[in-house]
Amino acid sequence: MNQDQPLLELFNQTRADSENICKPLATEDYVVQPIVDVSPPKWHLGHTTWFFEEFLLTKYLSGYRRFDERYAYVFNSYYESMGKRVVRTDRGNLSRPSVSDVYSYRAHVTNAMIQLLYSEPAAEVLEVIEIGIHHEKQHQELLLTDIKYILGNNPLQPIYGAQKNEVFVEHQPAQMIPIDDGIYHIGHDEDTFCYDNELPRHRVFVEPYAISNKLVTNGEWMQFIEDGGYTKVLLWHTEGWDWVQKNDINAPMYWFNDNGTWNNYLLSGSLEIDKNAAVTHISYYEAYAFAQWKGLRLPTEFEWEIAQDKFKWGERWEWTESAYLPYPNYQKPDGALGEYNGKFMVNQKVLRGSSIATAANHARPTYRNFFHPYLRWQFTGLRLAQSL
Amino acid sequence: MNQDQPLLELFNQTRADSENICKPLATEDYVVQPIVDVSPPKWHLGHTTWFFEEFLLTKYLSGYRRFDERYAYVFNSYYESMGKRVVRTDRGNLSRPSVSDVYSYRAHVTNAMIQLLYSEPAAEVLEVIEIGIHHEKQHQELLLTDIKYILGNNPLQPIYGAQKNEVFVEHQPAQMIPIDDGIYHIGHDEDTFCYDNELPRHRVFVEPYAISNKLVTNGEWMQFIEDGGYTKVLLWHTEGWDWVQKNDINAPMYWFNDNGTWNNYLLSGSLEIDKNAAVTHISYYEAYAFAQWKGLRLPTEFEWEIAQDKFKWGERWEWTESAYLPYPNYQKPDGALGEYNGKFMVNQKVLRGSSIATAANHARPTYRNFFHPYLRWQFTGLRLAQSL
Amino acid sequence: MNQDQPLLELFNQTRADSENICKPLATEDYVVQPIVDVSPPKWHLGHTTWFFEEFLLTKYLSGYRRFDERYAYVFNSYYESMGKRVVRTDRGNLSRPSVSDVYSYRAHVTNAMIQLLYSEPAAEVLEVIEIGIHHEKQHQELLLTDIKYILGNNPLQPIYGAQKNEVFVEHQPAQMIPIDDGIYHIGHDEDTFCYDNELPRHRVFVEPYAISNKLVTNGEWMQFIEDGGYTKVLLWHTEGWDWVQKNDINAPMYWFNDNGTWNNYLLSGSLEIDKNAAVTHISYYEAYAFAQWKGLRLPTEFEWEIAQDKFKWGERWEWTESAYLPYPNYQKPDGALGEYNGKFMVNQKVLRGSSIATAANHARPTYRNFFHPYLRWQFTGLRLAQSL
Amino acid sequence: MNQDQPLLELFNQTRADSENICKPLATEDYVVQPIVDVSPPKWHLGHTTWFFEEFLLTKYLSGYRRFDERYAYVFNSYYESMGKRVVRTDRGNLSRPSVSDVYSYRAHVTNAMIQLLYSEPAAEVLEVIEIGIHHEKQHQELLLTDIKYILGNNPLQPIYGAQKNEVFVEHQPAQMIPIDDGIYHIGHDEDTFCYDNELPRHRVFVEPYAISNKLVTNGEWMQFIEDGGYTKVLLWHTEGWDWVQKNDINAPMYWFNDNGTWNNYLLSGSLEIDKNAAVTHISYYEAYAFAQWKGLRLPTEFEWEIAQDKFKWGERWEWTESAYLPYPNYQKPDGALGEYNGKFMVNQKVLRGSSIATAANHARPTYRNFFHPYLRWQFTGLRLAQSL
Repeated sequence: MNQDQPLLELFNQTRADSENICKPLATEDYVVQPIVDVSPPKWHLGHTTWFFEEFLLTKYLSGYRRFDERYAYVFNSYYESMGKRVVRTDRGNLSRPSVSDVYSYRAHVTNAMIQLLYSEPAAEVLEVIEIGIHHEKQHQELLLTDIKYILGNNPLQPIYGAQKNEVFVEHQPAQMIPIDDGIYHIGHDEDTFCYDNELPRHRVFVEPYAISNKLVTNGEWMQFIEDGGYTKVLLWHTEGWDWVQKNDINAPMYWFNDNGTWNNYLLSGSLEIDKNAAVTHISYYEAYAFAQWKGLRLPTEFEWEIAQDKFKWGERWEWTESAYLPYPNYQKPDGALGEYNGKFMVNQKVLRGSSIATAANHARPTYRNFFHPYLRWQFTGLRLAQSL
Repeated sequence: MNQDQPLLELFNQTRADSENICKPLATEDYVVQPIVDVSPPKWHLGHTTWFFEEFLLTKYLSGYRRFDERYAYVFNSYYESMGKRVVRTDRGNLSRPSVSDVYSYRAHVTNAMIQLLYSEPAAEVLEVIEIGIHHEKQHQELLLTDIKYILGNNPLQPIYGAQKNEVFVEHQPAQMIPIDDGIYHIGHDEDTFCYDNELPRHRVFVEPYAISNKLVTNGEWMQFIEDGGYTKVLLWHTEGWDWVQKNDINAPMYWFNDNGTWNNYLLSGSLEIDKNAAVTHISYYEAYAFAQWKGLRLPTEFEWEIAQDKFKWGERWEWTESAYLPYPNYQKPDGALGEYNGKFMVNQKVLRGSSIATAANHARPTYRNFFHPYLRWQFTGLRLAQSL
Repeated sequence: MNQDQPLLELFNQTRADSENICKPLATEDYVVQPIVDVSPPKWHLGHTTWFFEEFLLTKYLSGYRRFDERYAYVFNSYYESMGKRVVRTDRGNLSRPSVSDVYSYRAHVTNAMIQLLYSEPAAEVLEVIEIGIHHEKQHQELLLTDIKYILGNNPLQPIYGAQKNEVFVEHQPAQMIPIDDGIYHIGHDEDTFCYDNELPRHRVFVEPYAISNKLVTNGEWMQFIEDGGYTKVLLWHTEGWDWVQKNDINAPMYWFNDNGTWNNYLLSGSLEIDKNAAVTHISYYEAYAFAQWKGLRLPTEFEWEIAQDKFKWGERWEWTESAYLPYPNYQKPDGALGEYNGKFMVNQKVLRGSSIATAANHARPTYRNFFHPYLRWQFTGLRLAQSL
Repeated sequence: MNQDQPLLELFNQTRADSENICKPLATEDYVVQPIVDVSPPKWHLGHTTWFFEEFLLTKYLSGYRRFDERYAYVFNSYYESMGKRVVRTDRGNLSRPSVSDVYSYRAHVTNAMIQLLYSEPAAEVLEVIEIGIHHEKQHQELLLTDIKYILGNNPLQPIYGAQKNEVFVEHQPAQMIPIDDGIYHIGHDEDTFCYDNELPRHRVFVEPYAISNKLVTNGEWMQFIEDGGYTKVLLWHTEGWDWVQKNDINAPMYWFNDNGTWNNYLLSGSLEIDKNAAVTHISYYEAYAFAQWKGLRLPTEFEWEIAQDKFKWGERWEWTESAYLPYPNYQKPDGALGEYNGKFMVNQKVLRGSSIATAANHARPTYRNFFHPYLRWQFTGLRLAQSL
């Protein structure tokens, strides 16, 4: 392990960041789960805490006493191997533990963790701590996007605040960057933290291609809408088309048309859409259909990783054409931590880059995020590519 | 209209009662909707308030300004004729309005209503006020049972408090009270408030029957369980049997078996079940199967009303064999208030009596409550009858 | 037991009738189950046969050998107490037994039953035989209506034939027949066959009312449609309105509008609708809404039975306002035959009369049919009433 | 185009083959659709015929008259761009057109196609004919597996016949074949027919790996079962585990345990399972879990294609780890035929090889079949691999 930042400082910063994200919330906002994919903010706060308690404190801090024995049941997420848990769809049905109890739980665990960090833990313990920190950073991303969903789908559309600027405009002239065919190395190789799914570094051959230096904009998306993009079946995957029909999709999430003007809900309040800003809150199905309409395609995750130092990224998660699969010779960690990534490697699509919701120091060129193709509550966008 | 209690006093008492019921709650408890039949407490507080605003203040109090134009959308329940509304299943997805905003809304409307009450309103306005008050009393019943559901189904089983004694024991010797055949009058005839569905008073002929002077007890229910009552298909309606199978029903709601001992969750905390207390939280399907097992039957609502002055009632809503139907020459009120009762007169069963959750002065011998036969989160019980 | 017709003759006639109903079918028509309520014709043929085998031949005909041991599993319908069975939704998934095997099964059982009938069986056996015959007559009704559904919902709309005249026109002037209040006797009392649910004969008091001497016509229904009957929420039950919205209901079943002209599918082929004919294929929900629109109501089943000798009936099952409930002192038969009627006595509505699909000698004034309120593939109609 | 076999002969053979597959069926077997993925055999016969009518005869055979205008609606499958169609779940609800009408339709179209083939059609027409023939060959595979499903899930388990030997035993000693890393060419390059999804031929780099020379056997699968493979959550994908739980999966499809002995349903009848035969009727989820249990993995489709000349294949479709995605520079054909393959390129897994149900001359090393990961009614199997 090799950190730019001392681990204790990183830990403290991460714990504080989660709580800062929740600062603007009313107590009630912590509780609800309007769709199954969106968890209540208090659940995120508790679950990231439970991770430290379950995988570290109960094992490595002698004399540690759990804050409440029953919390393991409440805040376990999907670690089937770690015992029974509240089913995911029920998270929004739990009024207790209260928000205030969850903050007490956090303080209890944070303090115990600091004790553990001071105790000069073994390397393998430090490794798990590091995973726990990155686990919490990942949840910070969900925390912000879940909050946006909770507020943005409320009929009163409450404002979260202006901490995050969602409107990202690129001013450079558009161009396609050509990349030569050849064997490239893919995956993490630095001596810093990465997830198991970014390893091992390995070789991939790519045929010649070009990739855009800019993200697709809201203005381009409006043209797609005006040209009937959501009504032309031949642009879509069968599954995508069924999704469009069943859910009456006709624009990105959070867009609403007010007398001919497209507005959208932002964390800072509702606003007329900026045509020059990068489009966001689209599903993979929509990204694919848009690319078909343009006569282009999405890049694979390898094409993206190879070219990523030639364009600016970091404001939108970018959909790729790649399915989320293990790299050659991928090794799943042993035990419960092995449930972390490998068990999701079917029926999901890889996103590359990072977004305005990504935690500090959490973005890197080899990071692989993944979501089901119909989801769009993340700050998703797209960048086009073509074969040469 | 003729009131024992002056209307203003009744109004104030009723408004205060709703808020008193919520006193023991944490803010988070106001928000959740664990099943579709259970509404968030803050929704009840807002909806009963909206009723006064919508049907009275906007029409009869000159100069009245709505607290928030958008609340009509949030707090309308099922009055389809009054415009769009949040669909019922989404009530638990709304973190806003906050609990504190809902209380401000209540104060705003309560004050305006007091103003209206002082303004010597016309008789027809007074009539709607009276309906509004009784509407709120009805919701108080749901408020308490919904709170019990929210707390009692939480894995932490928080305690509400000891304000309500749920354990009701009858000490008199059991006997069947015989009733002669003949024509009886059914329905309300006093000069006091009643709902449209209790009218008109009319004649009904009943064949000779007998009805128990006691409710069925937990002890008797345990015998039913031990005798395999939940596994004997011939005791059940087809629909009831399907419900038992699909939901793995093997005891009343809130019962849980702890190493051979039956406990149950009460508002005052979990406790070993008192065998002498009246059973509660059973569905109509279960009540019917139990009666079949006993070789007896449920009374009709007419048989209950005819005999009700011969036994004690008021602690359990009692399932009857009667379907919820209009009385001969039933008249639905005009307009939106006509949506109140008549539109539910299909596929529901009548309950008679009242329960520990019933508001003060809200119980009367002709009152007809009604629920779908599978529901059991009310304080339901049963009293047996037989034909002679 | 007292029969106008000798039992053997009745048995043979009934067995032949079922097969005659199926004469016009192609083999393929015997197999499908387009909705759960519609069973494949071959299933009806097999199930009515299984009834005789299961409840009579295996018990009372010495030396009887089942045609095929596995048929009990295939052709049991809902007699949970008689062992495992093909779940109802799977009936249309069974290509075997073939139609020809089902006819062989019928011949096998019919012959054995004739043997049994010649053997001078005991009175209690004759009683079950009689139930078996009436059971098959009931299925004949379903057989014809299920066939109509199978053919009428096929995009090719094949013709069944002209054996049944569905177009029923009443020429007498419309009038409301007044009936005095008083105690009336309800239920079967003749010395002929009836079902358990028609017993015991008992007394009912009715308030004064009037009932129409004619069924509602297609012409009147078109006026209801033109007046927006399907779009006016206040005419409907809540459940009915949900059903209308969810299923896009805007006319009776089998009606289709061809350039402004209302046609309907009949067993004899598609035709322009006769405005003077009695409307059919409506749900209870629609019947209720229509009555509300007219400012009238449906009769109760008692009102219908009391007045039934004053008007012509027998071409349409007539929806009543009554829920399907047991008569006072109703006794369910012991054992599996007890599953026949009693277990359906919840959440269904009573229909009175009979229809063009009713078997010969199967209609009588006390007969109680029952269906869920949303169903309309039977030849249902309505007759209006009012309180006086 | 370059054919070993003259096109007319290929066409005639293919048309005859489809009908031969159906020879053992009773009329009723042609009609049912027990699950959505299984189409009625008469639908396959009609749909493959409609393809020729729709894409060839109506366009290129002058004077052609459709057999029945309404059949386009009945037999269109998913070509959304070709107009309305019977929804997929309704195919089993259609008793008409009758089987005999479908055979007449086939004869009508076959004859017209022969006329077209004699008319010296242009190269682009020949190309569509060839697609039509291969389209029918693909459906022959489904025809046989759908028939197996229809018969094998019938409680009477009727026998289809012994035409197909499903029991495939490999006698060679097991070994892992090592393959060097390097750039390989993938995709079709011969001058014969292939689908668009096998093109273009392109370069892929693979890291060193080894692949088994044998398929996994039933005996090995029994060990997996005995070792609790279906109960160990850590072996499964999250989605796979949910599928196992929800559907109570504990063995391959068609396996049933009779007093401790594993039997399975075969087209030739039910039989004790041969431990030496290759396992079949498993989902991708199961294949993955089995590989995890072995400490190995599935090959990618590239690894399979590179090594396929080193082992015997052709009796089982083999699951690969690859998601079904377009090759670099993949071109979708224009118009409705473009709906053929590309629109399924999301959320499906690639199978390689072919199976005993594959039509003559339809197997080739570059062929890519694809199914959702939960499906197992095809003759699926698995071959293990490992990274070196």
